[in-house]
Amino acid sequence: MTQATARAARGGRAARLRARTNPAPVYLSTLNNRVGPIDLLGPEGVDRLHNAAMTILETTGIEFRDPVALADWKKHGADVDGERVRIGRDMLMDLISTVPSEWGYAARNPERSLRVGHRNSVFANAYGAPFVYGLDGVRRPSTLADAQNFFKLSQMSQAMMVPGILPAEPQDVPVRQRHLDLVHGVLTLTDKPIMGSVLSERAARDTVDMARIVFGEGFVDSNVVMAGLLNCNTPLVWDETMLQSLRVYAAANQPCLLSPFVLAGASTPASPQGGVALLIAEGLAGMAYSQIIRRGTPMVLGVAIMGVSMKTGAPMMGSPEPGLMNLLVGQMARHYGVPWRTCTMWTGSKAADMQSGYDSANAMWPVLLGGANYIVHGAGIVEGALGVSYAKWVQDAVQLENFHRFFSGLLDENLDALLNDIAMIGPGGHFLGTDHTRENPMHMNLLQNNDSFEQWEAEGSKSAEAVGAEEAQRILDNYVQPSMPDDQRGALDQFVAKKRAEYSG
Amino acid sequence: MTQATARAARGGRAARLRARTNPAPVYLSTLNNRVGPIDLLGPEGVDRLHNAAMTILETTGIEFRDPVALADWKKHGADVDGERVRIGRDMLMDLISTVPSEWGYAARNPERSLRVGHRNSVFANAYGAPFVYGLDGVRRPSTLADAQNFFKLSQMSQAMMVPGILPAEPQDVPVRQRHLDLVHGVLTLTDKPIMGSVLSERAARDTVDMARIVFGEGFVDSNVVMAGLLNCNTPLVWDETMLQSLRVYAAANQPCLLSPFVLAGASTPASPQGGVALLIAEGLAGMAYSQIIRRGTPMVLGVAIMGVSMKTGAPMMGSPEPGLMNLLVGQMARHYGVPWRTCTMWTGSKAADMQSGYDSANAMWPVLLGGANYIVHGAGIVEGALGVSYAKWVQDAVQLENFHRFFSGLLDENLDALLNDIAMIGPGGHFLGTDHTRENPMHMNLLQNNDSFEQWEAEGSKSAEAVGAEEAQRILDNYVQPSMPDDQRGALDQFVAKKRAEYSG
Repeated sequence: MTQATARAARGGRAARLRARTNPAPVYLSTLNNRVGPIDLLGPEGVDRLHNAAMTILETTGIEFRDPVALADWKKHGADVDGERVRIGRDMLMDLISTVPSEWGYAARNPERSLRVGHRNSVFANAYGAPFVYGLDGVRRPSTLADAQNFFKLSQMSQAMMVPGILPAEPQDVPVRQRHLDLVHGVLTLTDKPIMGSVLSERAARDTVDMARIVFGEGFVDSNVVMAGLLNCNTPLVWDETMLQSLRVYAAANQPCLLSPFVLAGASTPASPQGGVALLIAEGLAGMAYSQIIRRGTPMVLGVAIMGVSMKTGAPMMGSPEPGLMNLLVGQMARHYGVPWRTCTMWTGSKAADMQSGYDSANAMWPVLLGGANYIVHGAGIVEGALGVSYAKWVQDAVQLENFHRFFSGLLDENLDALLNDIAMIGPGGHFLGTDHTRENPMHMNLLQNNDSFEQWEAEGSKSAEAVGAEEAQRILDNYVQPSMPDDQRGALDQFVAKKRAEYSG
Repeated sequence: MTQATARAARGGRAARLRARTNPAPVYLSTLNNRVGPIDLLGPEGVDRLHNAAMTILETTGIEFRDPVALADWKKHGADVDGERVRIGRDMLMDLISTVPSEWGYAARNPERSLRVGHRNSVFANAYGAPFVYGLDGVRRPSTLADAQNFFKLSQMSQAMMVPGILPAEPQDVPVRQRHLDLVHGVLTLTDKPIMGSVLSERAARDTVDMARIVFGEGFVDSNVVMAGLLNCNTPLVWDETMLQSLRVYAAANQPCLLSPFVLAGASTPASPQGGVALLIAEGLAGMAYSQIIRRGTPMVLGVAIMGVSMKTGAPMMGSPEPGLMNLLVGQMARHYGVPWRTCTMWTGSKAADMQSGYDSANAMWPVLLGGANYIVHGAGIVEGALGVSYAKWVQDAVQLENFHRFFSGLLDENLDALLNDIAMIGPGGHFLGTDHTRENPMHMNLLQNNDSFEQWEAEGSKSAEAVGAEEAQRILDNYVQPSMPDDQRGALDQFVAKKRAEYSG
């Protein structure tokens, strides 16, 4: 703590302020969204979209490029023709009917456990970036140390509820061993609810085994302790790798975020409603399959929605049509009574600049207005999800606190007492000294610079990017590892050592 | 145009793309908001807030620090005690009942005319910044040339519907003459609906006279051609300067944006509901007074809401409670059937950086979700409204296009045709080549950089701030002044010359 204190003393006014005002992190739990959701469609519009999705699955059908899944579907009575599966709406809705609409999401520290579904939303980490924009702002391939750093930042963050599993793709670790280090890292460096690896069927199995070491086998079988992120190859293809992991997770009673990957205009029609009809069909088909594996296993209807530039083919983040699509997906998920996940806080920018602030906010607002239950890429993403930036991560994470406060809506207020204050203070006075003001400060983002120009200049004219990078360093310097019982830690280390030897052979 | 063409050729890929895709500006008209509004309160909550506002005006009352207004209130039957005016709810609601809920907002070019009220929203320019962040990014006192430049940028902008009146405070012009140059500038450099000067009673009178030269006296008397922005000294004081201008505008049948200036926690209670009760009381009192001047004159319930840091006293922009307050004000304005205005797109940042993007977006979303009808500070504001930045102005203005598209909501779509496309393309295909995709491109922000890292680096690693500054220069180089009949222009010039001589004496 001496080092931390010294740093705080060196770190200028903002750091001293933080040290004074934030002696210990206050963890925000599940967001109970009281502002959203917005329903864009009337009941007829919902029926129309539902019918469109059902028609796609009944007539065009969807490909399951995996012999086991095809056999399972055939056995269940679906129309299987080669790799093409056509699913009648009665069968589909019957399968979907057993997907839980809400569930607890257990952390190894019960105080960090969350809930997912209905009005409950959780914020999860960046996912999958092969490049990192370091503390020095320079871009380079991601490493295991980066992934571990983003786990540490998540652990210390008030609002990053789920540290994820793959905040940065560790390119310095052999592919076959990556999941071991990642799962070990997230379980030991954080005590929050995690995501699971889906890099391969083996990775999925090992993740479940490691969770069982920490949580106990019986507990895992009846509680959600992780979530896997599986992408559909939009349009209308579920591939073998994804389905193999889906079977592992479903059998273990752990949810997957079943996510069509939408480049609106490329992988789907350039139309909010047409696009959503397609991705609903894909998500529901995957979800229905999970119920063939294990009835009642929790699953999440997922989407990752970007626009695509008609000039360059590049993905566009924060643009309006994907925002509208998120609202539609949310409304349809509520119609089906299933939780839904989406992506947010991302940008195509290559810097933690004004574009990245705009893009990220413009991605997040529709997501929360749509009532998304599981929100991935909550911090750090730049470069169209190819990069994760330390500076932006930290700035994004404090923005999550902002969103958490706004979407928590109105709090109970004693309006009569406030009217008394107004009467007492009267025309021309001020409310800075009232008990109410002292006891109910406005939400503050301590990284937001609202100083005078002169003061800001005197303190080095720092951009939000510079502030974010400094704060990332400060948090990492002050990181406190959560404790883990020795026997658990020993068993985990042993498991990893054994598997690493096996896979390097 | 040769210069412009040469610049486009030099300006790299983005500029060439713009030249190819945007041969002429496409002006966006009034936003018809199909996504908002969000009602946070049930009917009981609305009654409670209404009763609180009425109680404030009936018991504490409000000061009108102006002898004429006090006499007017006394004559109308209000309880006047010194400068304190107490207004019964029956009297207040009777006066408010004649405020029009929607009106046309005439531009001298009828194609640029707008509507305000109900679901109709307009975006207006920055207002009142004494400092400018120039094309070189350097901060300096604002000049008349800056104000004129921001008028020109507004004229060329797709989405900046109202060029305002005071985008930058021209510190190089004597105070008594400023309004002449500003009104002359906005009337001649743009052909969009304007705001009016309220720097003094004389400024207000001259503005109305100049509008009469351009629009004709009879037209002005029966149509809105300008709007004045009047701040209340929250809590509960309307001062003489503001009331003098209010009388001029109301008598001329022109609306004012009657705006309590809210630093939540300082000028109002640190509470969304308590704060809104107070500002509703203030706004309605000013609005009621306008109806004593002229029954039926249009008026706008206005607010400018910031949080205030409990540590430094600095205003905070883009924070959550002011966002919630905007939602509440919108709901109350709908309850009273009056249009409402607010502020947006602002930041305390001293740079066009990530903070400024976040703050601006986080300010705008609640404003549009609240269904604000008249939205001031639509582009450019930095430094807590003390500064206006060219780079941010241009970036903000393209963000307005984004917001316009999102809040226009779903368009009619032929879902059957889209299902045919999906059936035809089938699993694993793509939609880039369909007629629908070609005819319905996703909305594009041409200043948003979605290129690969390598391409971005090869083109100079430009931040959004740099891109904005370059684009501002490009637009100014390509500015086309709208025509004005010679007799109008002559009369305006003559009016200004005569008044300038008079005021310099």
